[in-house]
Amino acid sequence: MDELFPGSVGTTASFSLRLGQTVFSSASLLFMSFGVEFYSYTAFCYLVTIMGLVIPWSFTLALVDGYSVLLKCPIHQPVILLIIAVGDWVLSVLTLAGACSTASVVDLLMHSHGSYCPWKYCSRYQISAVMAFLSWLLSLASSLFNLWLLPSL
Amino acid sequence: MDELFPGSVGTTASFSLRLGQTVFSSASLLFMSFGVEFYSYTAFCYLVTIMGLVIPWSFTLALVDGYSVLLKCPIHQPVILLIIAVGDWVLSVLTLAGACSTASVVDLLMHSHGSYCPWKYCSRYQISAVMAFLSWLLSLASSLFNLWLLPSL
Repeated sequence: MDELFPGSVGTTASFSLRLGQTVFSSASLLFMSFGVEFYSYTAFCYLVTIMGLVIPWSFTLALVDGYSVLLKCPIHQPVILLIIAVGDWVLSVLTLAGACSTASVVDLLMHSHGSYCPWKYCSRYQISAVMAFLSWLLSLASSLFNLWLLPSL
Repeated sequence: MDELFPGSVGTTASFSLRLGQTVFSSASLLFMSFGVEFYSYTAFCYLVTIMGLVIPWSFTLALVDGYSVLLKCPIHQPVILLIIAVGDWVLSVLTLAGACSTASVVDLLMHSHGSYCPWKYCSRYQISAVMAFLSWLLSLASSLFNLWLLPSL
């Protein structure tokens, strides 16, 4: 494990992925919750909950990666790497679920019951769903890179 | 690769998983499309499309597994195993997306706009979403087992 696989924990690629996840999930949370009555819809509440989990997780791992890169001290403990890999997978699945639910509810609100969703609100919900999808894509990339690392433990 | 990992392609466990996927995805498709106007909702159309992909995929792989088990002739070709693993992952993600979208739209129809969804129809949509989730769980299990096999190729 002296050569780090690009994108795995403790590399600059991983640091960039984590930063991206933090930015996109924060954007998704902000667009969903800032001045919008999201709590009337289960799917939107779910997305907000998940983003509330993803943001601290990604931010913490971004800090860990930054620390590893700066001090050139990669993480070698198999248990920690396993926890990160499993956590990434679980959060990735939950983020996908939240993004899909939000997107489908926004679509329903816009097309089937147009009168229930003013344009200003619906466009915010849409942007929030797109941000959640982008966060999921980056989260999936992190998960795949870390998964690649597991057999070498 | 003489010892097959339990659950990977060509074992009885894999055969059972594939049969389960075929049964649950067929049930999901039937409950969604039999006598119900699913085409008015994007999420439901999406689920029907995905189930239309999952059913032939799972059924074909069930046949391949059954053939391998009966003739005691496991698949050794890395390319075929890679295609199966990637296909499983892609379909697993799409199934989860479809199940979540359907579940959130059913929830919205039942709670926010009760009058738009007669009980008979809504309960069918609900059962269809549950079946899609069960199909996803089995598909995830297959994917994980096959993924475990990849480093040994």
